[in-house]
Amino acid sequence: MSSSFGKIFTISTWGESHGAGIGVTIDGCPAGVPLTVEDIQFYLDRRKPGQNTLTTARSEKDKVQILSGVFEGKTTGTPISLAIFNEDQRSGDYSEIQSWYRPGHADLTYDLKYGFRDYRGGGRSSARETAARVAAGSVARKILKSLFATEFLSWVSSVGQFEANIDFDSLTYDLIDASPIRCPDKDASSKMEATIASVKAEKDSIGGTVSLLIRNVPPCLGEPAFDRTEALLAQAMLSIPASKGFEIGSGFQSAKMRGSEHNDIPYFKNGTFHTRTNYAGGTLGGITNGENIYCKIAFKPTATIAKEQETVNKEGVSGTLAAKGRHDPCVAVRAPVIVESMAALVLVDLFLRNRARQNLFEI
Amino acid sequence: MSSSFGKIFTISTWGESHGAGIGVTIDGCPAGVPLTVEDIQFYLDRRKPGQNTLTTARSEKDKVQILSGVFEGKTTGTPISLAIFNEDQRSGDYSEIQSWYRPGHADLTYDLKYGFRDYRGGGRSSARETAARVAAGSVARKILKSLFATEFLSWVSSVGQFEANIDFDSLTYDLIDASPIRCPDKDASSKMEATIASVKAEKDSIGGTVSLLIRNVPPCLGEPAFDRTEALLAQAMLSIPASKGFEIGSGFQSAKMRGSEHNDIPYFKNGTFHTRTNYAGGTLGGITNGENIYCKIAFKPTATIAKEQETVNKEGVSGTLAAKGRHDPCVAVRAPVIVESMAALVLVDLFLRNRARQNLFEI
Amino acid sequence: MSSSFGKIFTISTWGESHGAGIGVTIDGCPAGVPLTVEDIQFYLDRRKPGQNTLTTARSEKDKVQILSGVFEGKTTGTPISLAIFNEDQRSGDYSEIQSWYRPGHADLTYDLKYGFRDYRGGGRSSARETAARVAAGSVARKILKSLFATEFLSWVSSVGQFEANIDFDSLTYDLIDASPIRCPDKDASSKMEATIASVKAEKDSIGGTVSLLIRNVPPCLGEPAFDRTEALLAQAMLSIPASKGFEIGSGFQSAKMRGSEHNDIPYFKNGTFHTRTNYAGGTLGGITNGENIYCKIAFKPTATIAKEQETVNKEGVSGTLAAKGRHDPCVAVRAPVIVESMAALVLVDLFLRNRARQNLFEI
Amino acid sequence: MSSSFGKIFTISTWGESHGAGIGVTIDGCPAGVPLTVEDIQFYLDRRKPGQNTLTTARSEKDKVQILSGVFEGKTTGTPISLAIFNEDQRSGDYSEIQSWYRPGHADLTYDLKYGFRDYRGGGRSSARETAARVAAGSVARKILKSLFATEFLSWVSSVGQFEANIDFDSLTYDLIDASPIRCPDKDASSKMEATIASVKAEKDSIGGTVSLLIRNVPPCLGEPAFDRTEALLAQAMLSIPASKGFEIGSGFQSAKMRGSEHNDIPYFKNGTFHTRTNYAGGTLGGITNGENIYCKIAFKPTATIAKEQETVNKEGVSGTLAAKGRHDPCVAVRAPVIVESMAALVLVDLFLRNRARQNLFEI
Repeated sequence: MSSSFGKIFTISTWGESHGAGIGVTIDGCPAGVPLTVEDIQFYLDRRKPGQNTLTTARSEKDKVQILSGVFEGKTTGTPISLAIFNEDQRSGDYSEIQSWYRPGHADLTYDLKYGFRDYRGGGRSSARETAARVAAGSVARKILKSLFATEFLSWVSSVGQFEANIDFDSLTYDLIDASPIRCPDKDASSKMEATIASVKAEKDSIGGTVSLLIRNVPPCLGEPAFDRTEALLAQAMLSIPASKGFEIGSGFQSAKMRGSEHNDIPYFKNGTFHTRTNYAGGTLGGITNGENIYCKIAFKPTATIAKEQETVNKEGVSGTLAAKGRHDPCVAVRAPVIVESMAALVLVDLFLRNRARQNLFEI
Repeated sequence: MSSSFGKIFTISTWGESHGAGIGVTIDGCPAGVPLTVEDIQFYLDRRKPGQNTLTTARSEKDKVQILSGVFEGKTTGTPISLAIFNEDQRSGDYSEIQSWYRPGHADLTYDLKYGFRDYRGGGRSSARETAARVAAGSVARKILKSLFATEFLSWVSSVGQFEANIDFDSLTYDLIDASPIRCPDKDASSKMEATIASVKAEKDSIGGTVSLLIRNVPPCLGEPAFDRTEALLAQAMLSIPASKGFEIGSGFQSAKMRGSEHNDIPYFKNGTFHTRTNYAGGTLGGITNGENIYCKIAFKPTATIAKEQETVNKEGVSGTLAAKGRHDPCVAVRAPVIVESMAALVLVDLFLRNRARQNLFEI
Repeated sequence: MSSSFGKIFTISTWGESHGAGIGVTIDGCPAGVPLTVEDIQFYLDRRKPGQNTLTTARSEKDKVQILSGVFEGKTTGTPISLAIFNEDQRSGDYSEIQSWYRPGHADLTYDLKYGFRDYRGGGRSSARETAARVAAGSVARKILKSLFATEFLSWVSSVGQFEANIDFDSLTYDLIDASPIRCPDKDASSKMEATIASVKAEKDSIGGTVSLLIRNVPPCLGEPAFDRTEALLAQAMLSIPASKGFEIGSGFQSAKMRGSEHNDIPYFKNGTFHTRTNYAGGTLGGITNGENIYCKIAFKPTATIAKEQETVNKEGVSGTLAAKGRHDPCVAVRAPVIVESMAALVLVDLFLRNRARQNLFEI
Repeated sequence: MSSSFGKIFTISTWGESHGAGIGVTIDGCPAGVPLTVEDIQFYLDRRKPGQNTLTTARSEKDKVQILSGVFEGKTTGTPISLAIFNEDQRSGDYSEIQSWYRPGHADLTYDLKYGFRDYRGGGRSSARETAARVAAGSVARKILKSLFATEFLSWVSSVGQFEANIDFDSLTYDLIDASPIRCPDKDASSKMEATIASVKAEKDSIGGTVSLLIRNVPPCLGEPAFDRTEALLAQAMLSIPASKGFEIGSGFQSAKMRGSEHNDIPYFKNGTFHTRTNYAGGTLGGITNGENIYCKIAFKPTATIAKEQETVNKEGVSGTLAAKGRHDPCVAVRAPVIVESMAALVLVDLFLRNRARQNLFEI
């Protein structure tokens, strides 16, 4: 297990899907950040399922509590412990997967690695763990918003074969939220919704991609060689359950381009350097240049499906499994706020790491 | 700067392209690994430029020295210091980029972040730093090969619009090495070579993708939540200069698939679990399942080109730059051995982290 | 803040003395360790105040809850979250120290560093934080006891000028527990008790030393250069509030000795190396040699005293303070179980770090 | 092995006593620090043996080279690689200890842990490794001196039973350097010198203590709970070969004191908080308060002595060993510059860690 992330602004998550609850401790948060339960609950509410008929029908209340690190409405600089206790620990729903490994799921690898597992609802491998990330991310977002007006906008950019067509400049949270599946392209959203509904009816699931645009990025973030901004973003995104790919800026498309076309031409205006285009996606040499960051993450279709599938049990016996329980037919739909949160955690840590040393000596 | 990678098998790289040399220290290597200069030099020779007319004509001898940590032909368990000293520190070639920022290059962001930079040959942001990773990676590969017969095969899978068609099962190092640009699909290789030659003639550059296949992967590697195998591979790959994207297994294609199609059906044979297909790409829930790992990395076209481009200098004045010096027209061509090395560093560290705790208590 | 300790078996503590509670997350615990609430509560009960008339009269119930990481009575290998919620959050008792800095206390430095502080009961700087360490330490002890029968025995070795005279070979937990102040030398214990009582009557406090003996230490633990066993023990002990000194083996006495006298002569018996004497205290070159570890820690007198003292407030105005509230007149008396816990956390982490690499290759 | 120290200003040392050389890489040094070879060599020259007849007669030239990270006389913010190559790798001197374990030495534990060892001159366990720390420490000292005029003064405070009597206020580097054994109390120095000479004549060795005074310490350094200033200083000092104890401020003496006596009374003058006394030794609650830091470290007598001693070999056979070679009869005499360096490394890292977050939000 490695449930910690970040070097200065360090989060440590804990909890299983059907245990007492989940939570996160933030160590290294600066003192003096105004912080309320509502600041955090706002983002948790965006993550929770049951917001529309296309996501899982489970009713997760996900009420966060601040257990430490905040005094008289401000962070004290000491560890911030956030917890979401489970009000409802029914474990009966998942008893079948105790014996049969769900194809495409971590049941098998957890058993191999640890010798056994908490089989209730996926245990630690459940996507429920990401609620703790969202809680921690909300603190990171508050810091960056307050200091730099940094905005993290993430949306569903494709489901199956349907791709959204988005204009970055005019994108707003309202446009994203207007779609029940957080796809701000109205036409595409309708088609995606229909696809998800039909897939669900067939007891199946479907993949999708999620895009992220970050505005008002402070320059100079990123610690080459290994903690380049895009390297940590890639780690952060590939640590989200069901993710299979990451690209920044021109991404895989860049492999087809010429240098003379791809190089963003720099210029100087109003005391700041800019680039005419932004194929780079906001970083050069692993360091932010002040332009918007944009990236895209691929999510595979939900592994747990109601359709009957061949599989195997712990003893190696083959059989079939049609998973019971309530599962999102398209995990990508719930991913945007998780993607935003992970990006905020990456940037706030890189910001503090840079601040430790920047402008200390005159050159 | 964060020039360290790995938690137990930890590497720390140092050096600039035109300084005294580059090097790496490996801390945490197990004792007793047979290790010679030749073991390391073999992979360094695969990385160095000038192997064919399509890569840069610079003559980098890249002769590695073992400065510590090896005694009587074996690692002692103490830090292994590897150094490659520059025999030729001509800095005159790069004087022009002292004043003009190369578009698409880290010149600008290094100046912003640090206040100034070693402008000789890109300094620390130069791809020359990756030679240190290859040196360290060769030790990681030796360990994994000796313990598990693990093989890391990486090749150029596309240049511009030309994509290689590869059969994973029959792929060998010899097939890869038969191509001057490490593309084991003969036809595609020819087309890629022609493309690179023509791009070079036009003083331009071109992007490409690099694929990686890892055979004989030990199961149970990967430390969820944040150090999932694919998360650390993603970080490792996006830390390579010029990389823009990463995908594992079905990658971005998975976003178009159904769960019933994507889920790899598990079965049990000869005492081991296997899967009928391998869309997952060798990991489930962030933990290796013993199947092959495969992934793909996108590289943008080389930023430094001889073609004249608009740009700006440190004072914000606009002008033009036609870069002198010798640069690879397609960085992807030199990337395979770097990709293999970074993957080996990820896996050896995860292996040791897993070994620390596995099978300690009977379940 | 840096509330994490350990590289593989990593603990992260949180909580203030008068907030919602305190807690700790253990990341990296091996799977399969049998663990119950009682295992942890046993050690917490040894730490809590109010066990005799000499320690503070506060009634801390300190009931621990296991929130994650344990399933069907065994650790799952995932993060173990332990919490102790405060049943009684009266903050009125401490309101005076909101304005006046307690001499010798962290009130001043927390205000300087963070700009303000949670002044209720010392907030994060309170010794109450050590309950979280004891909770985590109980898991470490269980692991080491089960694998190696390792025993951690700590006792009060001096209070003021009275020193205990202890025979290491015959020392038992029962002998320690027979003393209300955990001093297994009956005569010395009586004198120490009388001293503490008289100091308390004078509204003052007194210092003391605590000794630690570890039996059945696995050899080969310790990671030179910087994570030598004694270096990490020293960090661990000096991280306990009120500690001022640490020595291992012959400690400060060694400075007066000759090499021919101090060198422990090694011999071989029953398949194992031993030493005739043990001035080293169980480590050579930072690595355990299998002999007992013993060390001693100095604790200053409690800073918060009822006696009136001159002091200053946040605005720099001078005045006087006679602290209210209930405080231990001798913190050393409550330290033994904390010292044992920190030592167990050091050793279990070094054990896992060593296990990651040991005996991997034949020499 | 764990040859790294520091979280932001991170050093990684490498090298054995009789290999190609030793060195250190500093990752995380701020950009713009003026740095020359002379800055580093100055402190290395203070560490090297052979400065008087009382230390070992070996001629270690210890010429440092800067291999990376400095450009045009200033640090670039990239890794600084420093190396000291051995000019003279005679290994014949030490062949005897290949077979016989030196009592009190790490020969035995290295063999147990790693399966074999580089037996030439102690290999990695040799005190020669500390030259790399001194090299790195010189960069730390330059930073702290330039920003805060911080001074690190360390001296030999006792040898055997002779203790120096020092007035902290009037202590200078010149007074320390006036003594061949770095003891600024002239009378005590004479007695210590005579003791060392007589011990040497008897082919024996003797222990000693080393004290450290740090002036102009920036306040607010230290990261509770586990990285308190005194905790990291304790780790740093106990990581020096042959150290057996550490105390800060009143140290072990504090155990005999009353709270009313020990508490340093704070007052405010010229815009800053001060304390009337300094029993704390410069930290409260693990955080520096701006007063001087002082601490003391105990060193055991040199383990390797020319006197014949009983011992055992790898096969467990008993025999005798009278060590050949040149060894310091009192290691404490060479320790002051190492102690200063380790303290500087602790403080510079804590300074940068604090700077990352301090005064970011208004309270």
